Order: sequence, then structure tokens, then C-alpha cells
Amino acid sequence: MSRLLTNIGQLVTNDPERDGILGLLEDAAVVIENDRIGWVGAAADAPAADSVTDVAGAAVLPGYVDSHTHLVFGGDRADEFEARMAGRAYSAGGIRSTVAATRAATDDELRTRLAGFVGELHAQGTTTMEIKSGYGLGVAEESRLVRLAAEVTPEVTFLGAHVVPADYADRADDYVDLVTGPMLDACAPHARWIDVFCEAGAFTVEQSRRVLEAGAARGLGIRVHANQLGTGGGVRLAVEFGAASVDHCTFLVDGDVAALAASETVCTLLPGVEFSTRQPYPNARRLIDAGVRVALASDCNPGSSFTSSMAFCIAVAVREMGMTPAEAVCAATAGGAAALRRTDIGRVVPGARADLLQLKAPGYLHLAYRPGVPLVERVWKDGVLVVG
Amino acid sequence: MSRLLTNIGQLVTNDPERDGILGLLEDAAVVIENDRIGWVGAAADAPAADSVTDVAGAAVLPGYVDSHTHLVFGGDRADEFEARMAGRAYSAGGIRSTVAATRAATDDELRTRLAGFVGELHAQGTTTMEIKSGYGLGVAEESRLVRLAAEVTPEVTFLGAHVVPADYADRADDYVDLVTGPMLDACAPHARWIDVFCEAGAFTVEQSRRVLEAGAARGLGIRVHANQLGTGGGVRLAVEFGAASVDHCTFLVDGDVAALAASETVCTLLPGVEFSTRQPYPNARRLIDAGVRVALASDCNPGSSFTSSMAFCIAVAVREMGMTPAEAVCAATAGGAAALRRTDIGRVVPGARADLLQLKAPGYLHLAYRPGVPLVERVWKDGVLVVG
Ligand SMILES: [Zn+2]
Ligand SMILES: [Zn+2]
Repeated sequence: MSRLLTNIGQLVTNDPERDGILGLLEDAAVVIENDRIGWVGAAADAPAADSVTDVAGAAVLPGYVDSHTHLVFGGDRADEFEARMAGRAYSAGGIRSTVAATRAATDDELRTRLAGFVGELHAQGTTTMEIKSGYGLGVAEESRLVRLAAEVTPEVTFLGAHVVPADYADRADDYVDLVTGPMLDACAPHARWIDVFCEAGAFTVEQSRRVLEAGAARGLGIRVHANQLGTGGGVRLAVEFGAASVDHCTFLVDGDVAALAASETVCTLLPGVEFSTRQPYPNARRLIDAGVRVALASDCNPGSSFTSSMAFCIAVAVREMGMTPAEAVCAATAGGAAALRRTDIGRVVPGARADLLQLKAPGYLHLAYRPGVPLVERVWKDGVLVVG
Repeated sequence: MSRLLTNIGQLVTNDPERDGILGLLEDAAVVIENDRIGWVGAAADAPAADSVTDVAGAAVLPGYVDSHTHLVFGGDRADEFEARMAGRAYSAGGIRSTVAATRAATDDELRTRLAGFVGELHAQGTTTMEIKSGYGLGVAEESRLVRLAAEVTPEVTFLGAHVVPADYADRADDYVDLVTGPMLDACAPHARWIDVFCEAGAFTVEQSRRVLEAGAARGLGIRVHANQLGTGGGVRLAVEFGAASVDHCTFLVDGDVAALAASETVCTLLPGVEFSTRQPYPNARRLIDAGVRVALASDCNPGSSFTSSMAFCIAVAVREMGMTPAEAVCAATAGGAAALRRTDIGRVVPGARADLLQLKAPGYLHLAYRPGVPLVERVWKDGVLVVG
């Protein structure tokens, strides 16, 4: 089955062989062949197809690639959020309350909740989502979370090393033994990635190194949470391991920026976190100007960033982080794909997956120009219309 | 016809006779009688009705009252926005480009665009919207805009004194003669309010005084744009005239705050403007602590704030302006009603209009806790389901 989308006022291709950050085409058309992009070009040159959708001058983008979420959890932390907005500091202890609520939830309760989030993300234009475990913190509990995540996405990350659980409070190294031993054994078959929260209050660089070494030995790809709350060795550890992505990167020294620029590691910025915790924003301009590849993601989680809106992340990144609208849109699509080491998503080129987002707007600028306004008209994932 | 909404997990009533800023009820129910609220109370005590809607534990609020918009215009200014985000300063000259595009548009073009915005605002939970003229700046042009606005809302504001048009550049007083003379004659029959932009670069305090005096003499209520770009006499002028609202109020001296606190004038804050122009945010905390009544509105317009999302305004007000989530929600509902001197909207009490918003969330906190996420499930306006 082929479908022609035509009368596209502005098409974001992210095709590196086209001009500009976004590889824009005007008056464009796209042919979807089953689950893939079959053809891209000028509307006037479009081939015939089994069916035609006229988008009436709207902008079309690749679906968002949200490369950092924590969507398998129980409960919420609205009260903690309210307290923080009244002036109480964010503490990692909050994660433990989600761990308790997650452990208390049945598989079906978590599955229903997760399905709701998947629908919510699709409705906002996200067609690929990475999902981390990390609210189980036990062998059976973490393996349950990676299994549930694997039911809805291939981009599953084992994050047993999210925080040291209360029952290991004074013996974090013993917890790392558990994570790198039986927990990894139980989780690796269901995961593509391993991740660690390398930060004061979570795991040291040496503990993090043990986690990443064990994951790499099992064939998992590497991701790291680092430099969220202060400077530290996490970014350089990620680069040393050839991580696909190092995420947060709010506090960086010049050596971190230089190491990232010389690497293949994507720097994934999470503006929802700074918005929702009143922390200072990372400086995306400094990173981009240094030649670092940047992605934007939601970090959707009940503690530090409960947004699932990539459009919101784009608008905040432009307002607060020195990105141009084009850089932010690229970071939320092709950037997320790079952070997942994927070339079949995040771009509209022949052979890529037919993951497309049609806006209620004539151009991508409106995503930053109209903050908070739902601008999603239609979404296709793998060639199937999932919204609209 | 009566309809019972029941199983409301959290009901924001804004009823001053109930406790707290929001007059919250849990496990509540509401009966809609035709276009009005007929009954409010505990779900267990609810009377029978012709039909029943079970909202399954969701939160219900009064529909948002957006007391400051500029929705009748042609064109957009996405390119100006992009330039500003790249570092070019905002200039009032931008309004003139919208004036040109608006003058060039036919009635039907403006009507179609406006209908689109009305639908967009409803879809985001706004059930009452004020709409200003101000992109005509001529007698026929302004009267056309107030007539078009009056087709969709009773809250129409004549803002001929939005900016001095190019053809009056060196003779602003002559333009004020036009605004207070033939333009007011043509517009007053279609408007409830008069407004003036009292700011360096727009109209002086003395010019603004002439505009407000003329409007008041025609029986129009008073609103003022003031203190957006710097301190000045606009706020005190508004208080002197007993204005229903003075809007922006980003730069205030202590005397302004004291004057507002001693008055019935609502201070309407417009966080979308500061977000989209990278200006510093107004300090809502200072105003509330001084006893000033505060409203939140979108200022939806193609230049300085193209958001129409009241939920976005709430989230930004909490992040940036020192408001609690409860204060922000109150300001976006009952605050907007007060800014329009209305007691039949912005609250869920017997006799009020049945303008209600059901969230995809268990409580109002989620509006700030989940920024950017569309949380509207159903909207009723005058008892009629307009969304959901
Ligand atoms: Zn995270
Ligand atoms: Zn305005």
C-alpha cells in the first residue's frame, strides 16, 4: 500500500544531503510505502499512489524521538512538586517514594498506566520513545520493569543504578554488586541499553564505571545520567565508554565540552527538568558552538520532569538555552535518533521509517512561537495513522 | 434539561464561602440546569438529573477566563519571532506589520481565522475570552474589528490607541483626536471596554488620560496596558480611573503596588509575553503579598505572545513569578472574571454559568506539574459540551 502526502507547505527532512540544519523543502510531497518512506520531493513531481492525503499547506516533520523517559512507575509526586514550588529543595529521596509505589503496583496496573503514556506521547507527536527501568531496584522488580517497557518499545534501558535503595543505604558497593550481577542477568535479555546515574548522592564515577563495564560486557549500549546537579566526572566517563548519549549535562567544565566535541557521544539536554525544579538551564549554545551533537528529550518522570511534550521542550530550549528554533527541532528529531544510534528514524528520506508529524501550523517555527498550544494535526508511525 | 456530573475527584469552586484559595471539594458533584450551575456538593448527596456524566475521579474546574487577547488579525510574525530569538530586540514597529496584514484581509478571511482561534481556545479549556481591536488604527478599520469580535464574545475592547500608526508618526495628538472622536463614535456601540497602551513608544499618560476620559464618557469600562517595558505612570492612571484591570505590570515601583492594593483594579499578568520576548517576569508574589488582586491571561497576539494556552500561562507563572499552583489556577479563572467585573463566570456556584473544564488529571496541581501536556478532557460552555 502506498500513500501520497501532498501540498506540504514546509517539510523538515533532516536529510544531511539537503541544505540547512533541517533540510527544508517547500511545496513538497512524501510517499509512504507500507511502513517506510518511499519517495520525497517537490509536490509537482510526485508519483502516483494508492491513496492521497492533502495536508493543505501544513508543515510536516519527522515524528519526535524522545530518547529519555522513565514511563514505567506507580503513583505520582504532585505534592512533592507543590512543596518544591513553595521553596523546598529537590532531593533524590523522592525517587524512593516512586519505588515504593511502583513495587506496590500489579503488572496490569503498570501496563495500563504505561499504555496511557504511550497514547499521550503519540498524541503529542512522539513516534519513538526510549523507556528506562529504575523504580524497581531489586532483581525481580527491575526485570519486571524492563519486560513491561519492552512490550511497547525496542528502546529499553536497564537503569538498576538509578539510586541506591534504602535497604543498601550504607553499602552502595554491595548494591552495585547486585546490579552488575543477578540484576543484570535478569534484565539484559529485555534491554538494548544500560544506564547509570553518575552524580553526588547517587553513584560515584568508580561505581558507575563498574556498571557500564558490566553492561558493555553483556552487549548493551551505553547511556549515562550525569552533571545534572553539579560538575563531576560523569560526562568524561561517558565519553571514555563511547556512550551513545550522556544526559542532563547542566553543569559542565570546559574539559567536558571539549571531550564531548571530540567524541561520537550525543549530549541530551532535558529542559523539562530545569523548568520543573527551578534549576539553571544548560547552555546549549556553548555545546553547539563547540561542535557537540545535541538532543532534546523530555525525561518524563513523576519527580523532576513530568512533561511528555517535546514541543514544550523545544519552546523552553529556545527561550532559555540559546538554541535557534531550527536547532531545537533538529535536536528533538534527528538528535534523539542519533542519541539512540538510529538512522532509520528522525529523518524523512527514502528507506526511513514512515514516522511523520503533521502540524496545525505552516512551519516548524510555530513550535517555539506558539508555546503550550497543541499543534499536532496527524501522526503516522510506521506508516499507520495513529493520531488524526 | 439537567445534567449531573459526578465522581469528581477534586472540584475547584472558587467559592469565597468555601475554604482556601480555590474552595476545593473532594468526591463532589455538580448539576447543570440548562446554561447554569444548579447545584454543587458532595457526590453522595447529589440530586437526580435527566442525565449523568461520571468523570471517574477527574478534576473539574471553572473554564478559564482569558481576559486579554488580540485575536482579530491577519498574517503572523513568525519571522520576527525567529529574529528576536537570535538576538534582535523587540520593537513596537512589529505591530504595524500586523496592521498592514489585517487591513489587507477581507471580513471573511478575518472571520475564518477568528473562528479557528475560538475553537483553539475552547479546546484548551477557555470558556470566556476578551478580544481587543487595535490592528485597524482607522475609523472604518477599527469598527470592522470590534464588529467581528462582537460576533464571538460579549467582552469586546476598543483599542484604537494600541500604537500610533505610521501616517500619524509625528502627530500623535492628532491621532488621539481621531481615536477619541470619530473612531470612538464608530466603535463604542460594539464594545464593552476601552483600552490604551500607556507606555514609552506608544501613548503618554496625558494622551492615555484623554482616551480613557472619552471612553468613560461613552459608558465604556476601563482597561489599560501599562508598565510592560519600564516603569511609568500607567498603573496609577488606571487606578485613578477605577479601571477593571491594568495589564502587563512587569515593572512596578512601590507606589504602584500600594495604589493597586488600595484599589478595586485587578492586575493582569501575561507570562506568555515575557516568555516570548525574553523579558524579565513580573513578580506576582510581591503583588499578592501586598493584597493586590491578580489575574493571568494569554495576551494571545502574533507579536509578543502567540500562545493561547492558559495552562501554559499557569505553569510559567508558577515557575517564574512566585505564584503557588493554587494562586495561578485561581488567577486564570476567578481572577480573569474579576478583571472583567463578572461574577457569573470563573466560579462553580449555583446560579453561575455552566462553564466547566474536566481535566485528564486527578487535580489542578497537574496543570503546573505537567507543563505543556494537553490535559483537557471535556469542556462545557453555557451548559453545552463544546469539547470531548
Ligand atoms: Zn532521567
Ligand atoms: Zn495586549
